[in-house]
Amino acid sequence: MIQKNENNANVNDAITPRDKDFATWYDDVIKGANLAHYGKVKGTVVFTANATFIWENIQKALNKTFYNKGIRNVLMPSLIPYSSFNLEKEHLEGFAPEMFLVTKKAIDAQEMADPLVLRPTSEILFCYYFKDILVTYNQLPLKLNQWGNVFRVEKNTRPFLRTSEFHWHEMHSLHATEEEAYNFIKEINGNYVDFLKTYLDIPVLSGEKTINERFAGAENTFTCEAIMQDGQALQCATSHYLGQNFSKPYQITYRNANNQLSIPYQTSAGLSTRIIGAIIMTHSDDLGLVLPWEIAMNQITICPLRNDEIVNKYTAELAKELRSYRVFIDDSNNSMGWKIKDHQLVGTPILVLIGLKEALEKKVTIIYRDKNIKEEISYAEFIKNIQNFGNEYHNRLYAKAKARLDASIEICHTIDEVKKAIANKHFALAPWGGDANDEINFKKETTISPRCIKQEILDSEKLTCFYTNKKATHWVYFAKAY
Amino acid sequence: MIQKNENNANVNDAITPRDKDFATWYDDVIKGANLAHYGKVKGTVVFTANATFIWENIQKALNKTFYNKGIRNVLMPSLIPYSSFNLEKEHLEGFAPEMFLVTKKAIDAQEMADPLVLRPTSEILFCYYFKDILVTYNQLPLKLNQWGNVFRVEKNTRPFLRTSEFHWHEMHSLHATEEEAYNFIKEINGNYVDFLKTYLDIPVLSGEKTINERFAGAENTFTCEAIMQDGQALQCATSHYLGQNFSKPYQITYRNANNQLSIPYQTSAGLSTRIIGAIIMTHSDDLGLVLPWEIAMNQITICPLRNDEIVNKYTAELAKELRSYRVFIDDSNNSMGWKIKDHQLVGTPILVLIGLKEALEKKVTIIYRDKNIKEEISYAEFIKNIQNFGNEYHNRLYAKAKARLDASIEICHTIDEVKKAIANKHFALAPWGGDANDEINFKKETTISPRCIKQEILDSEKLTCFYTNKKATHWVYFAKAY
Repeated sequence: MIQKNENNANVNDAITPRDKDFATWYDDVIKGANLAHYGKVKGTVVFTANATFIWENIQKALNKTFYNKGIRNVLMPSLIPYSSFNLEKEHLEGFAPEMFLVTKKAIDAQEMADPLVLRPTSEILFCYYFKDILVTYNQLPLKLNQWGNVFRVEKNTRPFLRTSEFHWHEMHSLHATEEEAYNFIKEINGNYVDFLKTYLDIPVLSGEKTINERFAGAENTFTCEAIMQDGQALQCATSHYLGQNFSKPYQITYRNANNQLSIPYQTSAGLSTRIIGAIIMTHSDDLGLVLPWEIAMNQITICPLRNDEIVNKYTAELAKELRSYRVFIDDSNNSMGWKIKDHQLVGTPILVLIGLKEALEKKVTIIYRDKNIKEEISYAEFIKNIQNFGNEYHNRLYAKAKARLDASIEICHTIDEVKKAIANKHFALAPWGGDANDEINFKKETTISPRCIKQEILDSEKLTCFYTNKKATHWVYFAKAY
Repeated sequence: MIQKNENNANVNDAITPRDKDFATWYDDVIKGANLAHYGKVKGTVVFTANATFIWENIQKALNKTFYNKGIRNVLMPSLIPYSSFNLEKEHLEGFAPEMFLVTKKAIDAQEMADPLVLRPTSEILFCYYFKDILVTYNQLPLKLNQWGNVFRVEKNTRPFLRTSEFHWHEMHSLHATEEEAYNFIKEINGNYVDFLKTYLDIPVLSGEKTINERFAGAENTFTCEAIMQDGQALQCATSHYLGQNFSKPYQITYRNANNQLSIPYQTSAGLSTRIIGAIIMTHSDDLGLVLPWEIAMNQITICPLRNDEIVNKYTAELAKELRSYRVFIDDSNNSMGWKIKDHQLVGTPILVLIGLKEALEKKVTIIYRDKNIKEEISYAEFIKNIQNFGNEYHNRLYAKAKARLDASIEICHTIDEVKKAIANKHFALAPWGGDANDEINFKKETTISPRCIKQEILDSEKLTCFYTNKKATHWVYFAKAY
């Protein structure tokens, strides 16, 4: 796939360094790499061509995983009757403050008695569908997925991280037994960990959520938590074991092998466009975006440095050899400096510079986005090893992020230690024994939240919860979070 | 791609024959082939896994065409401030009766002063984005596309044909000159004609729309009109030349090469999930769905007819040989008759039956979905020619639909002839010289509408409009339409 198109970066805009102001750096990278643009309605954004391309690559990769697990895609309606939410109280309470409500079907129409909610998530939609179509045990397990947009009223918007409308996939499944459902959703969580590593070069801490951090209506939630360069956690994907919390009130039943009426066990899981925020804040630097090899818009950009027959011919030959990759030829009249800056801004993994010298000597000058230095290599070597070079780039990005995550974990036993770890831009790993209210109070007091449970505390450890002084039950990772 | 999964058709449901009741037949095929399911909110439907798979295949094919034309995908917000519609009066008038309005951001919140419209189409969203990002002439032409959902209040819902929420792509472009914009959108219309032929086996009449049938706010609309088996027209895709009708009021400007402030020329075009309705009503028969080779969920379904080592081994070998196609193995315990009925219902192009006889004699028994008769062929021949068999199947589907379309056109000169042609389930091709009001009156009177202009009438023809008795200006195709 060889593409010629115009230059998309905003090269003239300066990027604020990360250590000066991380939040402004984030906004500058998004603007410079042309990833998002605010919509007219507060809280909404346009996902530009660059961001959409990344998202489509993510979709392709996850679709392959899901398809091989027998998960099939469907498209649910976006509108849910408000009254339908009444059946699962926790779910209603969780989403009530964030609902966009359609109340009229024309500007001069009467208000509807039962308004329509723009779906904040689709559990209810899937429940009604499941109720209608499920008849017998041999339809189980039933595993469906949806790629779509969901809506949640947000006061403070940040592109990708928090928007009133965002895009995601949501997987919903039904199973005959608790055990099968539970194992399946743990497997899905494992698939996310693999996907984040293999395609996005993002290492994560993964495990169960504490009580208060679970999805509204779930029995249990598994999470993948990544650390951003400012030390804050970003929840990359969540997988929920719903038990019969939805299937019971929404009356989903089937006949089992003995012809008895039975209630299935349910799961759901999702990953959203906020992952683009995670990609930005995991890998990017003060020059702009750094994109993983597997999902980059352009994996390789070739810049002919003069418009000259020899250079153009050499560029065309090279592009042809590389055609199985996503290759972009920047044959604009811009200077070499401009071109380098441009493609560093949009995060191209491998930049290839071709001047007359390179063409005559059968060489190429390359710049890896993570190294930002020029390296000369023979044409033949480059062609022969390009797949390795891509893999090595991918491995370097992952290794760098993994080293940062590993180095960030501080074992803490007191609230002061926890606060100090967070102030150091680290994750605190600390013994916890509180209940849901303790979690709420601790978070209110410190803005620090439990990200995920590492493991249960052994009897031999005899540890005390750093916050409640009760007997600790788990080791839990704490951080400030996006 | 080899997939084993459960049987999706509703085999027990009888299909009403087409000539008994075409509308019921349509609903029966959708139910039998498990393509759509009504949502809880009136007018909405669930696009099931079978329908979504077809839609995703359509997306892949069109994306390839668009990408090669330099069109890049973006994702716009779904919400538009109501007040924004005021700038283009025709556009507002066209869509005002179909708007879902968000007026509250929580059940107990105050009504918003400026409600939010759930986008019925995205011209306004693209206009605001274009206004913000367009600066200079070297950004032109700017060609963007969006895959997404749109919302239009509908009173009478029919799955795929008319739903309050549907899925589509909408392409939007900006150009420096009228000529370039006009030529580009004609080219897009040509791409649709090719796509409909190549991927969906649907022949169409294509040309300009008459005044009253144009898109609300367009200078001109090009259309692709197909004939369904009941003689009604279905508009498969439309392409609009918008001129400066939007760019002027929405203040989209740029600096041209001479640094003068200029206003670009605009186009838009779309194809929606109603095309699935067109696929059903073009190809399907009284046994169920008939799917085109290129977009079928399963191109080939292999049915082992007994659970036996020899048959299973032979099935596995065959599936492996066919792995570059979308192959489904139906190894359920259902009878041969059930399996045939099942896969006829869901429209599988080639069904392969494997019993002990076939395995021992190195043969396969195949049933093409359009022929519905068993044919025996050697294993070697089948493997060797499968691509040809797929192509021939595709050609047969197209030829059959093309013959029907060609035979359906009746040249008419009087209103009685037009009415008689329509009563015969044909298209009427008739001389027309009316204005927008004449179109509205004629349609109100007869429920027949002009589908598209064939060509201008030559001076030498001296023809009279069959409806107004004015001098005819065009040959126009007329039909009842979905």
